[in-house]
Order: sequence, then C-alpha cells, then structure tokens
Amino acid sequence: MSNSTEISTPIFYKNDGFNQLNKFLKKTNYSSLFVLIDENTQLFCLPTLKKQLVLPFTFIPIRAGEKHKNLKTCQILWDELARLGADRNSILINLGGGVITDMGGFVAATFKRGMRFINIPTTLLGMVDAAIGGKTGIDFQHLKNQIGLFAKAEMTLIYPNFLDTLAPRELHSGLAEVIKYGLIDTNTIWEYIKSLDTNSISIDENIIKKSAQLKEQIVKQDPTEKGIRKTLNFGHTLGHAIETHFMSKPKKQQLLHGEAVAIGMILAVSLSSQTQGFPTANEIAKIITSIYPKVTFTTEDYPIIFDLLKHDKKNVNGQLNFVLLQAIGKPVINCQVTENEIMKAFTFYNSL
Amino acid sequence: MSNSTEISTPIFYKNDGFNQLNKFLKKTNYSSLFVLIDENTQLFCLPTLKKQLVLPFTFIPIRAGEKHKNLKTCQILWDELARLGADRNSILINLGGGVITDMGGFVAATFKRGMRFINIPTTLLGMVDAAIGGKTGIDFQHLKNQIGLFAKAEMTLIYPNFLDTLAPRELHSGLAEVIKYGLIDTNTIWEYIKSLDTNSISIDENIIKKSAQLKEQIVKQDPTEKGIRKTLNFGHTLGHAIETHFMSKPKKQQLLHGEAVAIGMILAVSLSSQTQGFPTANEIAKIITSIYPKVTFTTEDYPIIFDLLKHDKKNVNGQLNFVLLQAIGKPVINCQVTENEIMKAFTFYNSL
Repeated sequence: MSNSTEISTPIFYKNDGFNQLNKFLKKTNYSSLFVLIDENTQLFCLPTLKKQLVLPFTFIPIRAGEKHKNLKTCQILWDELARLGADRNSILINLGGGVITDMGGFVAATFKRGMRFINIPTTLLGMVDAAIGGKTGIDFQHLKNQIGLFAKAEMTLIYPNFLDTLAPRELHSGLAEVIKYGLIDTNTIWEYIKSLDTNSISIDENIIKKSAQLKEQIVKQDPTEKGIRKTLNFGHTLGHAIETHFMSKPKKQQLLHGEAVAIGMILAVSLSSQTQGFPTANEIAKIITSIYPKVTFTTEDYPIIFDLLKHDKKNVNGQLNFVLLQAIGKPVINCQVTENEIMKAFTFYNSL
Repeated sequence: MSNSTEISTPIFYKNDGFNQLNKFLKKTNYSSLFVLIDENTQLFCLPTLKKQLVLPFTFIPIRAGEKHKNLKTCQILWDELARLGADRNSILINLGGGVITDMGGFVAATFKRGMRFINIPTTLLGMVDAAIGGKTGIDFQHLKNQIGLFAKAEMTLIYPNFLDTLAPRELHSGLAEVIKYGLIDTNTIWEYIKSLDTNSISIDENIIKKSAQLKEQIVKQDPTEKGIRKTLNFGHTLGHAIETHFMSKPKKQQLLHGEAVAIGMILAVSLSSQTQGFPTANEIAKIITSIYPKVTFTTEDYPIIFDLLKHDKKNVNGQLNFVLLQAIGKPVINCQVTENEIMKAFTFYNSL
C-alpha cells in the first residue's frame, strides 16, 4: 500500500539470527521456500546457509552485479518462480548484497500480488542499509531504482561473518553508509570513523549493529520518507547522479555505490559549508578522501550530472532537494541549492 | 505493503463524482496530472473528462485490449512518465476498462516507488469490479495478472453515462460480475438478474451502485483475501483458466472476461450441486446461458484447462481452492474438488 505506515521489520544478528529464522519458518505455514543467490553468494555464503537452515529449500541463481538489476532479470525470476510452482504462500530468502535484496524484494512483492521475503544481506552495504527499510526496486533506462515499491521483509538477518569473504573495495563501499550515519546522527559512530585505521579491512560488529538499528529506527518513524527518513539521503542526491553517470564509462572507471556516495558526501559538506554555516567541511573531506580513491571530473561530466539530478526520485515540483548539515548530527532536509553552489562544491572536491 | 490492512477507497458517483474529483485535486499538493487512456476511451470518454475536469492534465494513450496488458506496455508507460517529468508527487488518472485500471494502477504504484492514482472505470466490468479493491497487475507468460500488487487508488469515480457508448457484448461481459454478486450475497441483485430483459442493453444505475458498494464492503473487511474476499472468486477459478486457454485460439473464438466467468459460474453451480447440495443449478444455468453465447469444449481443451488451473494465484500448497454455493447467498470458500467432478461439471455445461 502506498499509504501504509507499517514498514518495520525485525532484525536479528549472528547465530541467534539463524535460530530466529528456523523458528520463524517452523511456525509459519508456507508452501515452498526459495533462496535467491548470485555467483558470489553461491560460492561464499550458500554453504553457511545450508548448514544453518534446518528446512529444505530450492535456490535460484542469477548473475551478480548492478547491471543485471533490471526488468530482464525480473522476468527470468518471475518465470523461474512460476516454473518451480511458487505461489503466494511461498517464501523467498534474498541472500546477497543490495542488488539481490532490492530486486528479490521487488520480484517477491509483485509475484502473484505478493509473496513473503526475508533478507540476509551479505555485504556491509546490505547489512547497514539496503536490506533494511522496505525499499525494493530495479534500475530502468539507466536510472537507479526507478521502478520499485515499498515492501516489508518478514525479517532481516545480519551475519557479519559473511563479510570475511568480501573484497576490501566492497567493504569500503558499505562503510560510506556508516560514515553517513556518523554525520547525520549524534551518536558514537562518527567517533569510530575518526579512529578507524583506514588500512584495516575489518569493521566492528557493534558498529554494524548500531548502524542497522539507527536506520530501522528512522524508517519506523517515517516509513514513506515524508520527513526524518529524508536525512538518510545525505550525500545520495549527487552520489546517485555520479554513480549513474559513471555507469556509462569504461568498466575500470565505474564506481561502487558507496564510492559515489562518498563523493556525494564531500560535495554535500561543501554545500553545507556554503549555505548552512557548517564549520568542519575540510576535516570531514580529508577523512573521507583518505578512505576512497580520488575521481577526476572534467567539464564534460557536469552537464550530464546536472541532467541526471533532474530525475532524482526525491525531486518534487522540479525542485532539487538536498539534505545538508548545520553541524555533525544536525541535518537539514529540503535545502534548495543553485547550480553555481554545486559547481563550487565540485571545485572544492577537485582541490582536495 | 503486503501486510497492510487499509485498502478501502472512496467511491463517488455520477456528476457528484466529478465535483469530488475536482475538490480532491484542488486541495491536493501534486506536481503534475496525467490521464491514461486507450483509443476507445480517447474517442468516447476523454471529451467528457476534459469538460468536467477544471485542472489541466497530460494524456497518455496506449493500445486497447487485454493483449497489451503486459510488461512491454508498462515499459512504454514508465518511460513516458519519466520523459514527461512525472515524480512521486504526480497523480495518474486511469480512464478506461479493467486493462487500463489494472495496468495503470500497477505502473503508478511501482513508478519511483509509488505515485498516486485515481480510477475512472468506463466499462461495466470496471465499475462493479476491476476498479475497486486495490488489485493491480499485468499478464505474464500467458497467465492473467501474474505480476502485480495490492495498491490503493485515491478514489474511484463511477459515471454510468460512459456505458452508453459500450458495445452490448462488453456490457454483458460486465454483467457476469453483477450476476456473481447476486449469487454470493443475499441481496436484491439476483432478483434484478431474474427480471432482466436479456435483449436489453441497459443496466439499472442503482444495481451498478449496489454492486460497487458490495465489493467495496467485502474488500474492506478482508483486503488481502484471507477469508470473505475469496467469495468474490466465485466462477473465476475455472473462468480464468478458460479465458486464458481461449486467448491462444483464433481471435473469433476468444472470450471476454465476463463470458469466461459466466461459464465458470455454470461449472461452479454444477460443482456446488455435486458436493454442497446446492438445489437450483438448472435454473441458474438456464438464466446465464440465455445471456451468453454457448462455447464448445472438445477433449483437447480439458488437459490444457486443468494445467492452467494449477497456476491459479489462489492455490495454496498445490491444492485447487474453489468457492462453491450451498444456496444463493451462501458461499463456501476453500472447497476442494476432484478432476472427475470438474469433468462432470463440463458435461453438465455441454448438455445445456
């Protein structure tokens, strides 16, 4: 329902998570159980799931990667579910990163007008962000998540051991969302980021839990993004446009979601400094650039990025809406900025 | 939300409906207004809407007919909405029959995770059934409404004058749902059907209103079809399978939804007579066959129809679930019947 106010999903952690999952499945009257995976999670995560899950299931593999998060893959999945005899009383477990949970949630929520689904994120980005909050969707015509809906997972299971097999670049991509939580909320996450050894590739389990809980708490207060949930878009307005733009570049230059959001956050602190009197833009920009590779923007990039900004889902009445900061932990939503201010933000980024 | 319990939509009638629509649009802060039409409603209904609507809108035309109710058309619509600058604060008015309201609702509910929509049904089937109750969807792989979701229209506007331009065959198709309401509920609708001059091609406005209200009332009690809403599937389990099967036949032999449901209802009263002691199967079958053309089934048809039954969305754990009748106004849900009983029902139909 577009007007629904109930989107909150129970989140369980570590081995207790698998206990809760088994408990849920045992008490639930479902007709069949499916697990959506890609070639990565098939190799690295499916063996663990097989060991932990006491009930039988059928797995459905798809190709990994954002470029497969489209209608074509959805058609393959709807077709496969029908072929395997899934009905609206079946359950789909999404075992993977943001692509798997976003697309699996969308496919489940629209198959025969809705079957239930469970998210088991296997990336840091999934654990702290994508698998929580009911946003499902796919990319369409080169625009990210253009087609989708809000649909509630039955539960989300966070098993940090899955991160052990993750490439450092993927881990850093997920860390961008953790940095975001550090900046928009008054909590200890930002202290953690400041103390982080950027050469290390492990993330404190408590920080994962704290991030997941913070997101769940914000989403619960504002499921359909009328107010406080908008603060979660900090760094994402420009981040999404940059990510989309770089998707059309040669593979080597393409950016992971978190890498683009990291740039988006640096641009957003510059905009915050220009328009909201935000005091510590330089300090934050330095910490973020110490974690992520620097990207070169040319004069050819800007018009395309500005054009993509116009398609941002958060736009209303043709106005770009930015989340900016007055201070760390003090986000301001619905900020309008000029193209000139955005250009100045890029100049700030380029000078770092 | 799959678990939402709020699906009820205000229904307005006749000229008051347009007043309410204008009032709703004036008080609502939306960014842009679109009207989805097909070549029929463009010709016959759009001029009325233009006259009645006091606010500007952009219309989006698609090809008429069930065969266009598919993902390909959705892609055209999502693309067109993006091109026209629609955002999640836009509103889509679906002006048409079941294809337009089913598909328009699905496209709106999934565009940028949901924009609002309003249904203005222009067929009898739409007015008494399809445009009420939040079921949206499209056909996929020759299966009806395989992809879709429950999504609430902001309002439904019933303007019976639109029926004046409808072909008699279309009007009779919609009448099948009215007959269904007469059979599953203790009301005066069945008395109306019995007294109907089957050569007449006009339908009493009060019966339309009564039918729409009955559906809305049932849907409100049971939005996600766990109990009483299932009674609305009377005649539809076999009806859908027959409709789908005949879609692959030459165009001349294809059936409208209501024509297939009419056959489904005759088969269902036979099954009711065989298993529920339903007393007046012959009387009802005669009334229904006096309205709808007789169809010939051959031994080649049955295996295909049985196979299609297996894909019915209402199936749970591989069990076919029929709604049958103990008496007029006394429906029984979740009835299991054997293939042999279904074959006997076809024999009954063939003998009429």
